[in-house]
Amino acid sequence: MSELLDRGAARTTWIRSRMPLLAATRRDFAERRPFAGRRVGMSLHVEPKTAVLLEVLAAGGAEVVATGNHGSTQDDIVAYLRSLGMTVFGRRNDTLAEHEANVAAVVDARPDIVLDNGADLVAGIVAADATRHVIGGTEETTSGGIRLRTELAGRVPFPTIVINDSPLKAIGENRHGVGQSVVESIMRITNLMIPGRRFVVAGYGWCGRGIAQYLRAFGGRVAVAEIDEIKAFEAALDGYRVDDLRNLAEWGEFFITATGHPGIVTEEVFDRMPSGAVLANAGHFPWEIDTAALAARAVAVTELDTAIERVDLPDGRELILLAGGRMVNLAGREPKGNSLEAMDLGFLLQSLSLERVATDAGSLAPGAQPVPDDLEREIARRFVRAMGADR
Amino acid sequence: MSELLDRGAARTTWIRSRMPLLAATRRDFAERRPFAGRRVGMSLHVEPKTAVLLEVLAAGGAEVVATGNHGSTQDDIVAYLRSLGMTVFGRRNDTLAEHEANVAAVVDARPDIVLDNGADLVAGIVAADATRHVIGGTEETTSGGIRLRTELAGRVPFPTIVINDSPLKAIGENRHGVGQSVVESIMRITNLMIPGRRFVVAGYGWCGRGIAQYLRAFGGRVAVAEIDEIKAFEAALDGYRVDDLRNLAEWGEFFITATGHPGIVTEEVFDRMPSGAVLANAGHFPWEIDTAALAARAVAVTELDTAIERVDLPDGRELILLAGGRMVNLAGREPKGNSLEAMDLGFLLQSLSLERVATDAGSLAPGAQPVPDDLEREIARRFVRAMGADR
Amino acid sequence: MSELLDRGAARTTWIRSRMPLLAATRRDFAERRPFAGRRVGMSLHVEPKTAVLLEVLAAGGAEVVATGNHGSTQDDIVAYLRSLGMTVFGRRNDTLAEHEANVAAVVDARPDIVLDNGADLVAGIVAADATRHVIGGTEETTSGGIRLRTELAGRVPFPTIVINDSPLKAIGENRHGVGQSVVESIMRITNLMIPGRRFVVAGYGWCGRGIAQYLRAFGGRVAVAEIDEIKAFEAALDGYRVDDLRNLAEWGEFFITATGHPGIVTEEVFDRMPSGAVLANAGHFPWEIDTAALAARAVAVTELDTAIERVDLPDGRELILLAGGRMVNLAGREPKGNSLEAMDLGFLLQSLSLERVATDAGSLAPGAQPVPDDLEREIARRFVRAMGADR
Amino acid sequence: MSELLDRGAARTTWIRSRMPLLAATRRDFAERRPFAGRRVGMSLHVEPKTAVLLEVLAAGGAEVVATGNHGSTQDDIVAYLRSLGMTVFGRRNDTLAEHEANVAAVVDARPDIVLDNGADLVAGIVAADATRHVIGGTEETTSGGIRLRTELAGRVPFPTIVINDSPLKAIGENRHGVGQSVVESIMRITNLMIPGRRFVVAGYGWCGRGIAQYLRAFGGRVAVAEIDEIKAFEAALDGYRVDDLRNLAEWGEFFITATGHPGIVTEEVFDRMPSGAVLANAGHFPWEIDTAALAARAVAVTELDTAIERVDLPDGRELILLAGGRMVNLAGREPKGNSLEAMDLGFLLQSLSLERVATDAGSLAPGAQPVPDDLEREIARRFVRAMGADR
Repeated sequence: MSELLDRGAARTTWIRSRMPLLAATRRDFAERRPFAGRRVGMSLHVEPKTAVLLEVLAAGGAEVVATGNHGSTQDDIVAYLRSLGMTVFGRRNDTLAEHEANVAAVVDARPDIVLDNGADLVAGIVAADATRHVIGGTEETTSGGIRLRTELAGRVPFPTIVINDSPLKAIGENRHGVGQSVVESIMRITNLMIPGRRFVVAGYGWCGRGIAQYLRAFGGRVAVAEIDEIKAFEAALDGYRVDDLRNLAEWGEFFITATGHPGIVTEEVFDRMPSGAVLANAGHFPWEIDTAALAARAVAVTELDTAIERVDLPDGRELILLAGGRMVNLAGREPKGNSLEAMDLGFLLQSLSLERVATDAGSLAPGAQPVPDDLEREIARRFVRAMGADR
Repeated sequence: MSELLDRGAARTTWIRSRMPLLAATRRDFAERRPFAGRRVGMSLHVEPKTAVLLEVLAAGGAEVVATGNHGSTQDDIVAYLRSLGMTVFGRRNDTLAEHEANVAAVVDARPDIVLDNGADLVAGIVAADATRHVIGGTEETTSGGIRLRTELAGRVPFPTIVINDSPLKAIGENRHGVGQSVVESIMRITNLMIPGRRFVVAGYGWCGRGIAQYLRAFGGRVAVAEIDEIKAFEAALDGYRVDDLRNLAEWGEFFITATGHPGIVTEEVFDRMPSGAVLANAGHFPWEIDTAALAARAVAVTELDTAIERVDLPDGRELILLAGGRMVNLAGREPKGNSLEAMDLGFLLQSLSLERVATDAGSLAPGAQPVPDDLEREIARRFVRAMGADR
Repeated sequence: MSELLDRGAARTTWIRSRMPLLAATRRDFAERRPFAGRRVGMSLHVEPKTAVLLEVLAAGGAEVVATGNHGSTQDDIVAYLRSLGMTVFGRRNDTLAEHEANVAAVVDARPDIVLDNGADLVAGIVAADATRHVIGGTEETTSGGIRLRTELAGRVPFPTIVINDSPLKAIGENRHGVGQSVVESIMRITNLMIPGRRFVVAGYGWCGRGIAQYLRAFGGRVAVAEIDEIKAFEAALDGYRVDDLRNLAEWGEFFITATGHPGIVTEEVFDRMPSGAVLANAGHFPWEIDTAALAARAVAVTELDTAIERVDLPDGRELILLAGGRMVNLAGREPKGNSLEAMDLGFLLQSLSLERVATDAGSLAPGAQPVPDDLEREIARRFVRAMGADR
Repeated sequence: MSELLDRGAARTTWIRSRMPLLAATRRDFAERRPFAGRRVGMSLHVEPKTAVLLEVLAAGGAEVVATGNHGSTQDDIVAYLRSLGMTVFGRRNDTLAEHEANVAAVVDARPDIVLDNGADLVAGIVAADATRHVIGGTEETTSGGIRLRTELAGRVPFPTIVINDSPLKAIGENRHGVGQSVVESIMRITNLMIPGRRFVVAGYGWCGRGIAQYLRAFGGRVAVAEIDEIKAFEAALDGYRVDDLRNLAEWGEFFITATGHPGIVTEEVFDRMPSGAVLANAGHFPWEIDTAALAARAVAVTELDTAIERVDLPDGRELILLAGGRMVNLAGREPKGNSLEAMDLGFLLQSLSLERVATDAGSLAPGAQPVPDDLEREIARRFVRAMGADR
C-alpha cells in the first residue's frame, strides 16, 4: 500500500509544479479558508491533475468526499488522496454496480457543494430528495449542462455553474489544448509524417478548428467536412478545401472526427477510402466512427501496436483504426491528454466557481448557468500574466 | 459628359466580372422582378462596387433614387447610373449643405424601401413624419444599427435589417477582407518590408485578429494591445506578445489601430515611440490616433508621398503618419478597399435582405434586426460554391 | 526644369530615410573617401533608389558618369542627379539608338570602375578595346554574370563582382523581397481576394519559394509546378500540392511563373485553364507566359484597368493577363518593386563591393566572381543589427 | 527464444507496412537480385526500421553479416533477423569490449560491401589490411564521412557513398523529420503547452530551421541564437527574434540546442535562465548542454518522470533537463525518432546506393563521395509519387 501511495505522491509532483495558477490559489485559499466547514462531494476522473484540484479545495478548508468515473480511477492516486485525509470511493477495476454504489455513497455523505461531471451526482441527489442540503455546485461538461436544463429542469433548487460553457475553455482547452494534443497523439501513436500528407477533419467547431490549424501548421494538407453552412464558410476562407465527407473520402489519408455527433464516418465513407487510410476520433463519445459497422464487414482485425488496429476488408483494402474510435488524445501507451496549462486553466475555473458558490451562493440564480463574467475576466487576466505574455 | 459616362461604364466592367454572386442574383431578379413597382431610396458611397449592386436592384424592377456619402461620390459613376435611368443626387465636390439637401431629396422621393448607411435616411424619414410610406429596409453599418436601437428606438414602425451584424461579414469582410487590405495598403503606400519588422496591433476584434494574422503570416513580429481580458487571452494563446500599448510603444516599429474607440494612440504613447515609427489606423473613424495632439506638438509636418506624412517632434524624433489617421485601406494614390469577393458577399447580403423586405416584410418584426438566419445560410452556401472550395 | 528637379529631390526623401545602411555608409564614405580620384561609370535603372546609391558613391569621392536602362529612365531623377554634379545621359523617351549612344558615351568617358547591368558597359569597353583604363567593377544581374563567364570569358582583365550571386540576395531579395512584392502587386492590381483561392506557382527556386510561401500565408491554396526533382520534393514536403503545370491547369485560378525559363505557360496550358483564370509573371524576362501564342488565338484583347487585360478566346473563355506578361511586381499604376529594405541590402552589397574594387582590387582575381565572403558576413551583421532583430 | 522472435517479427509489421518505397524496392530486388553472391557487412542500430532495410538487401540476394551500435541493439530484432538466416552479432547488454569484438567479427567475415555508421567497419577493415576484399560501401553519417576524408584519407581504395550528405536527407529528414519529432517529443515527454510559450532554438542549420518552424507553427514564440552571420540573417528575415544565447537566456522558457557543436548552453547561460526553464538537446552528440557543469553546481537532481529531471540550484532556481541532454527525439518511455516516411527515404538512399556499388562500382571514384545525382533525382521522384503529392 505504501508503494502505491509513494507512486501517487510522486506522480503529482511534476504536474503540480506546472500548474502555477492552482498553486497560487492554494496559497490564497489556505489563508482565507473559503470552504471552512463545507463538505464538497465530487464525481470526476481520479487522476493526478484532479488530485491537484482537490488539494486546492482541501487547503481552502473543504472536507472532500469523492469518487471517480467508471473505469478511469487510478489506484495510486486514490491512495495518495486518502493519505491526505480525503474520503475516496472506488478502484480501477470496479464493476458498473460498484461504481454506482460509489456515486450513491457520495450522495449519502450529504455534501454542501457538488463538483459534478455529467450531472450524475445531482441526479442522485434529486432522486434521494436531498437537495435541501446543497448550496450549489459546478458541472464540468456541456452534456451535464444539457441534462440540468432538460431532464432535471425545475427540480434543482440550487445554482450549478457549468464550467465547459466558458469562452476561456473554448479557446484555451478546445481549440488550442485539443488541437495540440490530437496532433501530438497521432504522431506519438503512429510515428507517421505530417508534412505533405492529406488530412480530412470532420467538424469545424472549436476542436475541429484547432485540429485543422495545427495539422496545417505542421505542413499537412487539410480538408474540412462540415454541414453547418456558416462554419463551412469560415473553413473555406481559412484556406481549407471544404466538401462533403463522402466526396473527400477518396482523397484523404487521415480522417479525424470532431463533430460531437454520432455516425459521421459510415459505411459509404469506408467504401471510398484508400487502403491504408488512418481513422481517429477526437470527439468526446466513441460514436463518430461507426466502429460496429466497420467490425461487421471486417475479414480480420489485428492489433499492430498500442492503439493501432488494422482492419482488413473483403475487397483487400486495409483501414487503420486508432484507439478503437475512442478519444485519440487519451489513448496510446502513454496518454497525455490536454496540456498541464490547459488543465490549470480549467481547474482554476472550477476552483473560483466553487469559491463563489461557497461564499456568495445568494448572488447566483438557481439552475444551470455560465461562469460569472467577473470570474472569467479575472481568470483570463491571471492566465495571461502567468504566461508572461508581455515579455 | 459622355466621356464621364464612358469612364464610369468602363470602370464597372472588371468589378462586375469578379462579383459572380451578384451577377447570378441579377439574372434571377430579372426573371422574378421582386422589386417591381417599388422605389428604393439609397444613401451609400456612390462608387463602382455600389453601382453593381444598384444594377442588381434595378434588374429586379426597382426604381432607384440614390445619393452618396459626403465627399466620396464619384462623378463618373453618377453619370453612368443616370444613363441607366436612375435618379442620383450629388457630386464629388458638394458642400455639406448640398449633401444634406441630397439626402433630403431622397427622403422627399418617398421610397418604399430604404438602403441606408448610418441611419441618415431613416432619421430624415422620421423627422419628415413619412414612415408610413416605407415597408422596410437595410442598414449597412453597426453604428447605424446602434442609432436605430437608441436614438430612433420606438420611432421606426418598419423592419430594418442590419447587414453588418452578420457573422458572414465578421468573418469574410472584417477578418479576411480588412486583414488583407490593411496589410496590402501598408505595403503599397510605404514600400516597406514586412518580414522581421515589429508591429503593434491595437484591438483584437475581428479586424484586429485579421490584421495581426496576416502581418504574422507575412513574417512580421506582432504584438497585440487589448484591454478586454477575454480577447487578450485569445491573442496570447494565438502566440502574440500581449501588453499595454504604452509598454509596447518603445518596441514597435509600426502601430496599427483597430479598436473602434477614440483616443487609443495618445501623447504618452507618442512620447515613447522610436523615431521612424509608422502609424496607421484601420478603424472606421479617424479618431483612434490622436492626430490633433500629434499636430499640436509637431515642429513640422511634411508630406513625403501620397498618404505619407513625416511629423517632426521637438525632441528630434520623426513619426510617420499614414493617411492622416483615416482608414489606411481606403487611402493612397490608388485605394483598393476590401477585395471584390468581400464586396460581392456584402452586397449579396444587401440584395437578398432587400428582397425579403420587398416580398415578405410581414415576416419581419419592426425595428433593427439581424439578417434572417435562412438567408445567412443560403448566402454562405452560395459563396462557398462560388469559391469552388470543394476542388 | 526646376520643377522636375524639385520633384526628383522630393521623391528620394522618403526612400533615403528608409535605407539606413546606405545612410551609414554614406557618412562613412564621406569621411574615408575611398573613391577619391575615381570615375565610376554606371548603367542601371535611373530611378530614386539608384539615386540614393549614387549619392553614396559621390560622397565617397567618386565622379559619376551614368546612364539608365532603355525605357525606364525617370526624367526628374536625371535632373536631380545632374544638380548634384553628376554626368547623366538619357531621357525617358529615348529611342533604342539614342539609348545605345548613351551607353557608348559612358564607355567613352573612360571610367576606372564599372557598375554594370547585364554586362552592357563591359561589352562596350571590350569592343572599344578600353579595358586597360578599368581596375574593376560590379555586375548587378545573374544574366550579366553568365555573359561575363561565356561570351566575354577571357577578354576582361579586371575583376567583376557579381552581386546577384550573393546568398544574402537570394534570401533577402529573391525569397522575401520578391515573395512579398508579387503578392502585394497581385492584390494591388486586381483587388481580388487571396484566402481560399487556388494558385499555381510555376518554379520553386528562391522567388517561387517566396511567392508560394506568402500566398499560402495569406490563406491561398497553393500548388507548385516544378520539373527539377529535388525542388519538387522540397515543395511536396513543404506541404504544397505538386504536379505538372498541364495537370494543374484545370484546377488553378491564378497562375504565376517564376522559373527563369521561356515558354512555361503554353497553348496546351491555356487550353485547360478555366474561364477567368488570372496569369502573371514574376520572372525577369517576359517570356514565361507565351503571350504571342495567346494573342494569336485571341478573339479580342481588352484593357480593363491598368495592367489588366482580358483575352477572349474562341471557345468563349476569358483569360486575364496581368502586366502583359512582364514582371508583375514592377507593373500597375503605382509600381513598387521590392521593399526599400531589400534595396538597401542590395545596394550595400554594391557599395562595399565597389569600395573593395576601388581600394584593394589586387586582392581580387580577374573575371566574374562572387561577393567576397567577409563582405557578405559584414553586411549580414549590419542588416540584422539595423532590423533590431534582438529586440 | 520463440517469444523474442515473435515479438521482433510483430514489431516490424506496422513499420514495414508504412515504408512503401522499401517495399517496392524489395519486390524489384527480388526479381533482379543485384546482390547475388555478395556479402554485406553492416554496423548500424539493430532495431525494427533497420530490419526492414536488411530484408530488402536479403531479397536482393545479399548474405548479411551485421552488428549494432553499442547499447542500442534490440534483442527481439536480433532474434527475428537470425530467423531469416542472417548472421547477427550482439546483445542489448554487451560490454564495450564485447561490442568491439562484434565489430571485429563483421570485419573478419570479409564482406564485399560495407554498410557503415561512423566509419567503424572501414577503420577495422583498414586496420586488418583487408581492403582488397571490398568493392565499396555506404556510410550513414556526416561524422563518418569526415573521418573517411581525414583520418582514413588515402587509405581506402574503394568508393564509399556518404548518405547523410544528400540534399534529400537535409530536407526530408533534418528539416522536416527532426523538426516534427523534436516538437512531438517535447510535448510527449512534458505534456506542456506550446502556444504562446517562449522558445530559444540554438542553431539555425537544417535541424534548427525545422524545429523553429514547427514550434512557431504550433503557436510558440521563438527566438534563434546563431553565430553564423548568414544563417542569423536568414532567421531574422524568417521573422524570428535573433540574439546571442546569453542575451536570450532570461527571456526563454524552453531552450533547444541543434548546433552540432559542444558547450553551447554553459554556466553563464544557466545563470540567467528563469526558474522552471526546460532544456533539451536535438543534436547528435550529448555535449551541447554542459550537463557536467550543471550537475556540478546542483544542490539536488530529481527524476520527476521518464526523461524529466529537476535540477535544484543553490540560488533556489530549478531547471528542467530532458533526456539528460541526449537527443530528445530518441528519449522518453516510448521514443519515436523520425517518422517512418523519413526512414523510408533514408533507407531507399541506402538501398539504391548499395545497389550502385554492387552492380557498377567502376563508375564510382575511390573514397568518400555523395550519393550519385541520378539516384537522388530518381529517389526524389519516387518519394513525391508515393506521397500522392499530385492529388
